[in-house]
Amino acid sequence: MTNSAVEKRLSDAGFTLPVAPAPQGSYVPVVVVGTVAYCSGVLPMSGGTLVAKGRLGVDISIDEAREGAQLAALGLLANLKAAIGDLDKVARVARLGGFVASSPDFTDQPEVINAASDLMVVAFGEDGRHARAAVGVAVLPRGVAVELEATFILK
Amino acid sequence: MTNSAVEKRLSDAGFTLPVAPAPQGSYVPVVVVGTVAYCSGVLPMSGGTLVAKGRLGVDISIDEAREGAQLAALGLLANLKAAIGDLDKVARVARLGGFVASSPDFTDQPEVINAASDLMVVAFGEDGRHARAAVGVAVLPRGVAVELEATFILK
Amino acid sequence: MTNSAVEKRLSDAGFTLPVAPAPQGSYVPVVVVGTVAYCSGVLPMSGGTLVAKGRLGVDISIDEAREGAQLAALGLLANLKAAIGDLDKVARVARLGGFVASSPDFTDQPEVINAASDLMVVAFGEDGRHARAAVGVAVLPRGVAVELEATFILK
Repeated sequence: MTNSAVEKRLSDAGFTLPVAPAPQGSYVPVVVVGTVAYCSGVLPMSGGTLVAKGRLGVDISIDEAREGAQLAALGLLANLKAAIGDLDKVARVARLGGFVASSPDFTDQPEVINAASDLMVVAFGEDGRHARAAVGVAVLPRGVAVELEATFILK
Repeated sequence: MTNSAVEKRLSDAGFTLPVAPAPQGSYVPVVVVGTVAYCSGVLPMSGGTLVAKGRLGVDISIDEAREGAQLAALGLLANLKAAIGDLDKVARVARLGGFVASSPDFTDQPEVINAASDLMVVAFGEDGRHARAAVGVAVLPRGVAVELEATFILK
Repeated sequence: MTNSAVEKRLSDAGFTLPVAPAPQGSYVPVVVVGTVAYCSGVLPMSGGTLVAKGRLGVDISIDEAREGAQLAALGLLANLKAAIGDLDKVARVARLGGFVASSPDFTDQPEVINAASDLMVVAFGEDGRHARAAVGVAVLPRGVAVELEATFILK
């Protein structure tokens, strides 16, 4: 249960925050400095398992990758909530970086990352509109199709 | 017409700012938070049409891609002007991220992105010198050869 | 000789800061704005020569690339020291961006970039834990296997 307005909007739209995985290694999911939260790259997970594996243009569809982008976006928000306690403390989504594992002839990276961008607006309304870069990379960790990183501004 | 010193320097060097395209989708061209302007990735456009398509090492030359990098840089500045009203409000170009669609044997990404870096110095003088990362990606949205994102510091 | 606690920790762990290369072109190794230091992408160098060339999954091993990641991390720190004078002025490593030149079937980018992340913790202790994105790109400048960029927060 939560009284968070952000989580209620996500829930009303059918989205559930995952459990943030425990940090591992020398990097951390989120670094908060003043009012800036730098968030590590997140891979799409569902029920603790990596999903949305493959490369666009080879062996995963745009729709499957868009679902992966939504899951990665939810993972970003879960990590942020674990770091700051309450997503209602977010003042603005400043930047979203979207990496899409792509064959050289797949050029619809924006359609994939739009699913994550739209989710930010579901969660934060106008404050969810962000600067964004979407690029097509050769391959991503563990063979997933999408990785997202983000910078949030806190109240 | 403009009294902007930045635009006069660009004009004197033969560069013209394009019309900033209307924002579309859940992301926005620029997010301004305090004195930091986060700018979305920009593709090379000329007269409202995407140009500089192809991949380095395959079907576009370094010179053509450098022209694309200049056009993407002008697009960044057009977006920034639309967001803040006057490019003379820029205190510093903090960071430029350059993505170059490349075949695995093309390793001259810096030469391509240098055209964008040089343009920032044309526009802003010493304040245009920036931190930069240039990488070679598999493919970029819509098949263009270059994408640029940037962070500016405002006065 | 240095009295820097950071450099002593690096030295005790067997690491030596390289000489920062002279800046060239229209970009600079580091832009400092207030307490934020934006650092340009760094390639692995040893004795003034580029090393760790190749692509993961093709012609360089994970161990060789990890050594390259350490050298690139040391290059970042050398550039930062040249810009701010003393690495003890670092309050926090905010973000590390790691690009790994990869064939489409190599998916262990995190193992490569972990070597750089671990070095940040050697240098800065808990303040060295950072947000991070690691992706696999088609190719990097000059054919190296690893490129790192970073954002540091200063005291």
